[in-house]
Amino acid sequence: MERITATYLIETPLELARVAEVLAGEQSSGTFVAVPGETAELKARYAARVEQIEMLETVTTSSLPGVRGGSGKFQRARIRISWPLENVGYNLPALVSTLQGNLYELAQLSGLRLLDFDLPASFAAKFPGPRFGVAGTRRLAGVNERPLIGTIIKPSVGLSPAETAEMVQTLCEAGIDFIKDDELMANPPHSPFNERVAAVMKVIHAHADRTGKQVMYAFNITEEFDTMQRNYDTLLSARATCAMVSINPVGLTAVHKLAQRGELPIHAHRNGWGQLTRHPLLGMEFTAYQKLWRLAGVDQLHVNGIANKFWEPDDSVVKSLEACSSPFLSGQPLLPVVSSGQWGGQAFETYRRFPSQDLLYLAGGGIAAHPGGPAAGVRAIQSAWRYAVDGLKLEEAAERSPDFKASIEKFGRS
Amino acid sequence: MERITATYLIETPLELARVAEVLAGEQSSGTFVAVPGETAELKARYAARVEQIEMLETVTTSSLPGVRGGSGKFQRARIRISWPLENVGYNLPALVSTLQGNLYELAQLSGLRLLDFDLPASFAAKFPGPRFGVAGTRRLAGVNERPLIGTIIKPSVGLSPAETAEMVQTLCEAGIDFIKDDELMANPPHSPFNERVAAVMKVIHAHADRTGKQVMYAFNITEEFDTMQRNYDTLLSARATCAMVSINPVGLTAVHKLAQRGELPIHAHRNGWGQLTRHPLLGMEFTAYQKLWRLAGVDQLHVNGIANKFWEPDDSVVKSLEACSSPFLSGQPLLPVVSSGQWGGQAFETYRRFPSQDLLYLAGGGIAAHPGGPAAGVRAIQSAWRYAVDGLKLEEAAERSPDFKASIEKFGRS
Repeated sequence: MERITATYLIETPLELARVAEVLAGEQSSGTFVAVPGETAELKARYAARVEQIEMLETVTTSSLPGVRGGSGKFQRARIRISWPLENVGYNLPALVSTLQGNLYELAQLSGLRLLDFDLPASFAAKFPGPRFGVAGTRRLAGVNERPLIGTIIKPSVGLSPAETAEMVQTLCEAGIDFIKDDELMANPPHSPFNERVAAVMKVIHAHADRTGKQVMYAFNITEEFDTMQRNYDTLLSARATCAMVSINPVGLTAVHKLAQRGELPIHAHRNGWGQLTRHPLLGMEFTAYQKLWRLAGVDQLHVNGIANKFWEPDDSVVKSLEACSSPFLSGQPLLPVVSSGQWGGQAFETYRRFPSQDLLYLAGGGIAAHPGGPAAGVRAIQSAWRYAVDGLKLEEAAERSPDFKASIEKFGRS
Repeated sequence: MERITATYLIETPLELARVAEVLAGEQSSGTFVAVPGETAELKARYAARVEQIEMLETVTTSSLPGVRGGSGKFQRARIRISWPLENVGYNLPALVSTLQGNLYELAQLSGLRLLDFDLPASFAAKFPGPRFGVAGTRRLAGVNERPLIGTIIKPSVGLSPAETAEMVQTLCEAGIDFIKDDELMANPPHSPFNERVAAVMKVIHAHADRTGKQVMYAFNITEEFDTMQRNYDTLLSARATCAMVSINPVGLTAVHKLAQRGELPIHAHRNGWGQLTRHPLLGMEFTAYQKLWRLAGVDQLHVNGIANKFWEPDDSVVKSLEACSSPFLSGQPLLPVVSSGQWGGQAFETYRRFPSQDLLYLAGGGIAAHPGGPAAGVRAIQSAWRYAVDGLKLEEAAERSPDFKASIEKFGRS
């Protein structure tokens, strides 16, 4: 019988094997006391199963509050649990309830983190994954055999549609491949969505008519459900080529529904993700997270960047890059979106650790605040990537590209 | 000008006032480097403002990893930030991006928790809040002037529609007010949603025809977006009176869209909530969480219970009960759903600390596993509540109700 499996990092002051059984029981046929209908037959067929327990270190401090019992020693372990597919069926939010549900609430655990999960191959029929992914985005943006270079409209809020369009004009002329709204910019009174789309797309089409290059602009369609659908329609009418969504606030099922339309790549902004992952014994790993969003059908997903301005260590960023490009069911890979304090200097370490050019490299301030102007900022990043792929070191690239040299002087701290 | 305000608990090794400004900047007009368009005029109009900083204790260990800089001492503080309404408009997911966004990622912070937020009164026009709430649920369930007594179908998974209906028959005869699917039971092959609805509602209608009492059954409609809408239609056709949704996996905008239909109360199951709240310096307080879901329009929201089987302390549960019944905008209060290891014994402490009967009191095992059978289980809980409201102590109630006495002997550990 087909089974769903999940791997967790757990921490408990109690007997490990017993706690693993409680966890499995909570997420299938059990409750806090034996109930009449829980027959042996039913248990045999529907109970979740503890597949593996791998002991890790013990610690002397509980990672999370509210744990009950035990001796003051906390055992960590990696455990694998499985469920019959029949418990859930092909139902994405119900799958999430099964994988996570009330587990974070268990008083027997002083830590729980969903590390990864795997699904039967038969999920692919209902959840084909990204419609565009890397290949579709490249086709629409007309960029092959190098990373897509993008930027974010800054300041995040406060610009009118006309001011935004002016900035887009400058960025188009600077040779950018991709521009996006900030996640704080959706549909405020000072920049109504429809007006922004009209103003920006006029510039983008004019530039495309002139040069043959249509810059991809990811408009933030984040809104109530019906408005998001209308925003998507607006993008189609305006011949825009990308829809951005703040996936955590919008939620899994609405994003899935949008992605199923399949007419525009979905640029998935993961704002809010920090609360789900920053504590090492809580929430989940990006490995699991990106699988959920691949099932929902997003195409481009944020992964932070090497030497970012946020808390996340480089190792974690590299793992996320790898996760996006790993096979999952029979779907195509996600296009990872690298961002946060990026200016080109990180291209070398990024490529060394993730030797692929299938990524969207975003620089906000790194382009807008380049001393030579945004065109120099774009050229600097393009040069950095070209030389990084060619195997040059940062200092060698600086010697060959004055624009990149200027970036190092302005932004280089790593 | 109307402003949105939010209160956070933060922890930082750096200078507090400076960090509060970084936080405000990240969530409005700033980025990691000054950019040309961020003029003084724009800043004056759109920048988030630090309204208040209240110093709390210092600690010597960082609550979250990845913090950069500082002296090894971590200052905690409560801070209040405000934004012009104009930055966001009336846009629920964009509001969430503004309140939370990338804040959990900031390397300047070793802890961040959203405690509460407040909105201009003008939000009420677009977000009227619960359509049913306490009053609407009472009307549909025909229960006044006492708590609604409910239960969960257990085992959670594995029962066929016919077996579920049989259990519903028993529970109806036992005098229950409310029954719900488990959050793990949505639309699996062994209990297809439509068949379960048909089988269960046949029993419920027959019971109503016989006795005049229509038991409220919250069917778990959790599924992909279109299927949820169809499931909702199925409930209307079957004259069911409640739709249950796993709100975190389904997501804010899809739940909002469902609630806007306004034909059925939405029973909001908060599974997954633990990962957002269990760490005291991460995620958010229930006070903020329930406001988001009131904006989305849910009617009944889980709050855990006194002396629950999970990690949560009673103080936190009481705070959640109070939050659900507190005024918010001009909407009506939420009906709090009390559950987790409940069997009636907790009625006394629950009523002492939250002297209201406007709640839905769920007991799963507490009813199904009562030694005298489920009817005795329901009677025991009803007696416990009646005597608790009358001011009796648990022991006094036990003397007057043999059913409750049997519950104490079976479940009483607190």
